[in-house]
Amino acid sequence: MEVDELIRVYRDGLLQDTLPFWIPRSIDHEFGGIFTALDRDGTILSTDKPVWIQGRFAWMLATMYSMVEQKQEWLDLSRHGVDFLQRNCFDANGRMFFSVTREGKPLRKRRYLFSEIFTVMAFAAYGCSSGDESFTQKALDLFKLILHYHSTPGLISPKTIAETRPMKGLAMPLSLILAAQELRKATNNPICTTVIDESISEIERDFVKPEFECVLENVGPKGEFYDTLDGRLVCPGHSIEAGWFILEEARHRNNEPRLIKLGTTIIDWSYKIGWDKEFGGILYFKDAKGLPPTEYWHDMKFWWPHNEAIIATLLAYKITKEPGFLELHARVHDWAYAHFPDDIHGEWFGYLHRDGSLSTPVKGTMWKGPFHLPRMQLYCWKLLENGPIV
Amino acid sequence: MEVDELIRVYRDGLLQDTLPFWIPRSIDHEFGGIFTALDRDGTILSTDKPVWIQGRFAWMLATMYSMVEQKQEWLDLSRHGVDFLQRNCFDANGRMFFSVTREGKPLRKRRYLFSEIFTVMAFAAYGCSSGDESFTQKALDLFKLILHYHSTPGLISPKTIAETRPMKGLAMPLSLILAAQELRKATNNPICTTVIDESISEIERDFVKPEFECVLENVGPKGEFYDTLDGRLVCPGHSIEAGWFILEEARHRNNEPRLIKLGTTIIDWSYKIGWDKEFGGILYFKDAKGLPPTEYWHDMKFWWPHNEAIIATLLAYKITKEPGFLELHARVHDWAYAHFPDDIHGEWFGYLHRDGSLSTPVKGTMWKGPFHLPRMQLYCWKLLENGPIV
Repeated sequence: MEVDELIRVYRDGLLQDTLPFWIPRSIDHEFGGIFTALDRDGTILSTDKPVWIQGRFAWMLATMYSMVEQKQEWLDLSRHGVDFLQRNCFDANGRMFFSVTREGKPLRKRRYLFSEIFTVMAFAAYGCSSGDESFTQKALDLFKLILHYHSTPGLISPKTIAETRPMKGLAMPLSLILAAQELRKATNNPICTTVIDESISEIERDFVKPEFECVLENVGPKGEFYDTLDGRLVCPGHSIEAGWFILEEARHRNNEPRLIKLGTTIIDWSYKIGWDKEFGGILYFKDAKGLPPTEYWHDMKFWWPHNEAIIATLLAYKITKEPGFLELHARVHDWAYAHFPDDIHGEWFGYLHRDGSLSTPVKGTMWKGPFHLPRMQLYCWKLLENGPIV
Repeated sequence: MEVDELIRVYRDGLLQDTLPFWIPRSIDHEFGGIFTALDRDGTILSTDKPVWIQGRFAWMLATMYSMVEQKQEWLDLSRHGVDFLQRNCFDANGRMFFSVTREGKPLRKRRYLFSEIFTVMAFAAYGCSSGDESFTQKALDLFKLILHYHSTPGLISPKTIAETRPMKGLAMPLSLILAAQELRKATNNPICTTVIDESISEIERDFVKPEFECVLENVGPKGEFYDTLDGRLVCPGHSIEAGWFILEEARHRNNEPRLIKLGTTIIDWSYKIGWDKEFGGILYFKDAKGLPPTEYWHDMKFWWPHNEAIIATLLAYKITKEPGFLELHARVHDWAYAHFPDDIHGEWFGYLHRDGSLSTPVKGTMWKGPFHLPRMQLYCWKLLENGPIV
């Protein structure tokens, strides 16, 4: 595909398809925040509000405001989101809920710190775009709270009993890089680069496993490999995402060769282990030793690993000019665009069977909202236009 | 199919296929208990031990000893199981873990009481079969501890914050009926019948919804319907299981008409909402209002709902003599036997895609072990032979 044509696909997809699907129908003007559980045509399936997605969309809108156009509607809707987060999504200790009701009453709380991560992104981007530095400060304070909870033993009870089998997950260093990269756009605080450095080192040292040519989801505190179902788990979409966050950091550091090597190696391995040679598309879970995974949806095709792989391969090509990455990009782009878009009601379906057939027609859930798809569209559009992202 | 032929399928399946798959290869003679994560050919995929399945298999073996043949091996292996449960699966408060390592060190603890439920069954059945009344007493004590935790507010933290949206699940009354029915075979303590009565009333009053012709998975404390993703969730396999537990109770009470009506209505509705008209088989989740479910594996075909439906329809026919139930039985039996058995290595696959193709070839996981399939084989064999079950 020509570059101009590809820009059109991503840009028009974002501005004329994805955003108009979510705005205005997901916006709750009565109680604030957004609805995310939307049926194929946008009908609301549930008014419960997942906190992750409140933060992700507020971040997305503020980022569009700074990168695409200073459209007041986007800034106002981003503010609508951060207001709801501030007003309704924190507990008395400054930790955040996982979901709240339409009215903003707390519904579920989980031990993990991901609601906080996405709220840091939202506050930082809104602070940046609006010029309201109090949000930058709030983002920084919340980021420090995340670091405190993450680094203090006992504050977050682990999934497996630590005395028997201490474990840590890829999700946390991955999320810390993301939040720190976004926070850095709003503040010069050196904590951002320190956390990025530490998190990339941790991924490289503990999660990247050359003996399996993959990135593991769960390891021991020092990167110990556990030969169990959890210990062998690989989530290719997740590690591809880690790969492009690292490449993004390489770009930020004048194309630092060590980071380019690390990021492209991760993308290459993850694509290889995740690509479904029989049906195409990226599988959700694989086993590092090639044994059969036992997670129920291991061979389903979710929208978001495809979004992440489209970004990652395009960025890897842009940085390295290796034609192999352009081929990987074309392959995953073509498969995704042949299977995920809804030609009738717009946006993308989220959940396909292994063979690419539809598992459910919903457009949004407690997990799927306006984030991975529009981020990909924005990112790839701007990348092809040669504009800076970081 | 003729009755003799059907008996042969269930009996020989149990004695010549299912049991020989699990014994001896799942037995851990070194550390006790059983391995459950087995690959298609029985190769061990992980040595972690789920506590539910330790109890379920110990129950199964003791029950075989009393119902099939007083085979010392079965009683010894049941003892091997209850010993491991006693020695390695309890915490200092008498609560139980969800999983332990091969060596029996605690690995995960969950808030729910299902490890305790299956251990009550194991202790009761072993006590009955061995004549060792100390196990009957342990089963009774543990059952009372379950009731204490279940009925005391605050002892178990709920999934959703109770002040905002108090919720209760079908799983608990369902499990209490099962545990109490098994415990009653070992002891005359009137608590068993009291709990069974209360649990059946609770299901009938709060979970059975004539307006949707289904049984809900999650409701408010007084059976309030929540129009949310969780609130509309129906798990047909689960409610079919509830249906046959209630029919079993009807049989125990000289075919009490009220219970027969309730049990057959539940089975009828659940089969209707769960049966996949396009591909056959029983879907995992449905939405009470017919909206699209959002759980990832909602349209997969798992082995166990088919085991439960085969039992339920056969029992419903046996009690009512309505030919409709025989037709339902033949339909689900035929679909299941056409798709789940592994002709090469024996036993059943557990996880199929909606269209009946294989999702993963594993025979056991942290959830699938020797329970639903052999229970169905034993139950249906004995039911067809006219032998009493309760």
